[in-house]
Amino acid sequence: MKIVVIGGVAAGMSMASKLKRLKPEYEIEVYEKGHDLSYGACGMPYYLSDIIKDEKTLVARTQEEFQASGINVFTGHEVTHVNAFDKSIEGLHQEKPFKKTYDQLVIATGASAIHIPVDNHHLKGIYPLNSLQDAIHLKEALKSAQTIAIIGAGFIGMEVAENMIHLGKTVHVIERLDQVLPTYDAPFAKLAEDALKEAGVIMHLNETLKGYEGLENVKHVITDRQAIEVDLVIEAVGVRPNTQFLKDQGFDMLPNGALVVNDKGETNLKDIYAAGDCVAYPHLLTQEPTFVPLGTHANKMGRIIAEQLSGNKDAYFHGVIGSSILKVMDLTVSKTGLTMKASERLNLGLKYVDVKAKNQAGYYPGAELMDIRFTYDPKTLVIKGAQIIGKKGVSDRINIMASIISQGLTQDILENMDLAYSPPFQPVWDPLQIAAQQIK
Amino acid sequence: MKIVVIGGVAAGMSMASKLKRLKPEYEIEVYEKGHDLSYGACGMPYYLSDIIKDEKTLVARTQEEFQASGINVFTGHEVTHVNAFDKSIEGLHQEKPFKKTYDQLVIATGASAIHIPVDNHHLKGIYPLNSLQDAIHLKEALKSAQTIAIIGAGFIGMEVAENMIHLGKTVHVIERLDQVLPTYDAPFAKLAEDALKEAGVIMHLNETLKGYEGLENVKHVITDRQAIEVDLVIEAVGVRPNTQFLKDQGFDMLPNGALVVNDKGETNLKDIYAAGDCVAYPHLLTQEPTFVPLGTHANKMGRIIAEQLSGNKDAYFHGVIGSSILKVMDLTVSKTGLTMKASERLNLGLKYVDVKAKNQAGYYPGAELMDIRFTYDPKTLVIKGAQIIGKKGVSDRINIMASIISQGLTQDILENMDLAYSPPFQPVWDPLQIAAQQIK
Repeated sequence: MKIVVIGGVAAGMSMASKLKRLKPEYEIEVYEKGHDLSYGACGMPYYLSDIIKDEKTLVARTQEEFQASGINVFTGHEVTHVNAFDKSIEGLHQEKPFKKTYDQLVIATGASAIHIPVDNHHLKGIYPLNSLQDAIHLKEALKSAQTIAIIGAGFIGMEVAENMIHLGKTVHVIERLDQVLPTYDAPFAKLAEDALKEAGVIMHLNETLKGYEGLENVKHVITDRQAIEVDLVIEAVGVRPNTQFLKDQGFDMLPNGALVVNDKGETNLKDIYAAGDCVAYPHLLTQEPTFVPLGTHANKMGRIIAEQLSGNKDAYFHGVIGSSILKVMDLTVSKTGLTMKASERLNLGLKYVDVKAKNQAGYYPGAELMDIRFTYDPKTLVIKGAQIIGKKGVSDRINIMASIISQGLTQDILENMDLAYSPPFQPVWDPLQIAAQQIK
Repeated sequence: MKIVVIGGVAAGMSMASKLKRLKPEYEIEVYEKGHDLSYGACGMPYYLSDIIKDEKTLVARTQEEFQASGINVFTGHEVTHVNAFDKSIEGLHQEKPFKKTYDQLVIATGASAIHIPVDNHHLKGIYPLNSLQDAIHLKEALKSAQTIAIIGAGFIGMEVAENMIHLGKTVHVIERLDQVLPTYDAPFAKLAEDALKEAGVIMHLNETLKGYEGLENVKHVITDRQAIEVDLVIEAVGVRPNTQFLKDQGFDMLPNGALVVNDKGETNLKDIYAAGDCVAYPHLLTQEPTFVPLGTHANKMGRIIAEQLSGNKDAYFHGVIGSSILKVMDLTVSKTGLTMKASERLNLGLKYVDVKAKNQAGYYPGAELMDIRFTYDPKTLVIKGAQIIGKKGVSDRINIMASIISQGLTQDILENMDLAYSPPFQPVWDPLQIAAQQIK
């Protein structure tokens, strides 16, 4: 059995590693376009500010380690074509073509930062933050830059903004929408926005990038409102699946190019699986194929595909529910399940409750308020989503809610659950239970 | 409708408050033997060390506030007899008898610290920590005591020991069993024990209290091994339900006197409910009546009884699963569900996995290892229990497990759950998911 994997970061290498453990006799070949394998991309914003000092600590396993485990890894190999009919791939290595056959193929090509083709977008000093090499180059360039513009106020934009503040930079964030963190409901996004503003970030919402100006290096960011003088630009307007080479070959894709996979990781083409930032996962609550480029899903689907290929046909991906968490200065910002925004977009008719409650017993020193929104189905009282933002005890609670919402539980189950309690950690009625009580 | 409540702390007052909101027209009378209502007993260890400075902050609501809400509260009224046949109670107030009738009765008399009748147990300087008045007297007495012996290494004993260390005392803990925290499996109890020893606590395990010595004040604690010179003794060997006055009246009780109630809070006698530290709750996993004297259960069952009495017959108590958490110096010590000890006692045939894993991405500074034990049913792979101990991110995880275990989920549900992830808070595979992967 010969397994070919295209792409050697989270999804590809977790698949390959797991499968090699399950089936040592399988031949596994990984073709990776870039130079780095299996690295923690989520740590890159913190690497920029030197909170994480050495890029080597971001690398989970090296090419040598994978080779030693019996996985054949080819870096610098770009796959340019998949022939689903004769079960082969074609590509280029140092400008020379190569062709390989497979029994089973796994596509794990990830996604690339979107680079907007505005005026002068080829000027120097405009950086993406997509690969480990990007991060290394950007960290070096930041040494001689004081004023930074970040284009986009999604997760990466917000995390990078915080880390630029840690470096003592002057930071502009430019976002064409009227809120940061577009997957959050507006009042909750506002709390995250305010935390960055308070830290000194100059926030430009409702402002659209029109172009750049400069001679060799970028000197101004031009928006629909003004010209902003900058030394360096970081683009963080989202990512696009690396599936252009698969166009017009009959793959089922979302409009952005994300490969639609089922809960076994299968694409619609025979013997071709896909995982990671190049796919749209099944959503556990809405059943929609959903583009959620996150390392956790890449790792999980990678393992599921390995189980499938090893013959364990019972293994299945349980679905995404939209869980996310990020640090924004001293706030923890988190969500899971469906927001009111999602409800309106999908016409689900959810309702919500908003609650402020303390993370621990009010009489124990250091208690902090957190803001909670639960969305719920008004007919069944099933809790459908949670957004939680606060300074303490938030990462505690969002994943309790991920568990509650994954299981489709009603508010009374949470209200009456035997949660562990002690004054330094929880009030006698946990904030989650106080919010559950409001749903009635 | 006239509701009589015996006992005015957590269970009694949460019942009365909720019922008054649901049914303002009901007449509610609360008879409380002591002086304080509705206080946060769980905060008392921290009050001793002045982490919580003022006892008033422990009082959730005062008698005046309850009266103002329309609940008639009688403090200093000790109920001495319940006549289930003519639906009345009898008692004493300032040595004068009183008698009242009821339509529905709620018993919420709590529990009292066990005082072991060893030699010289009436000497001065031997304190319980059961009521708010106990805490006030003990805090005063601690001012002139340097060497403290704590009898018992359960939750209260451990919390008090930590707080005595904070006060700079010399602290002996005397425990007749071979481990601290008897509800935990031995290797996990050992981690908590070691944390206290490292902080300076002198730990005497396998050592049994035989008596005290002294003239007026206690001067020595006598064990089966030695005499320990002390200035003050705090007894924390557990509590006994305050149900002696109900003996021989046909109530279904555990051997320790805990009233057995069903999931509606009903005792076996008609129109008599009970909640709080005087009852044994239904266990969600074993169905056994279980004595778990904790404020969370008291509050929850109090509300359920209020719902029942208001006519909402669908409300029910979902059962305890044995969740607990406590701070032991810089460790968080927690459990939920069934331990291996419980499995052996009940002959359940559970198995376990032990895992050490980091609370956050290893490359993000400040990661700490935590110790995790999951128990599980080897036939179904349903996770039955979790014990988690570590310095960071523990209170996060134990209540995720409370949710998982309450719902009877198998290991693959947890392994594949969409948990929120970001490097400052979680590794890409959460420690809980790593432990779930080990179950196979």
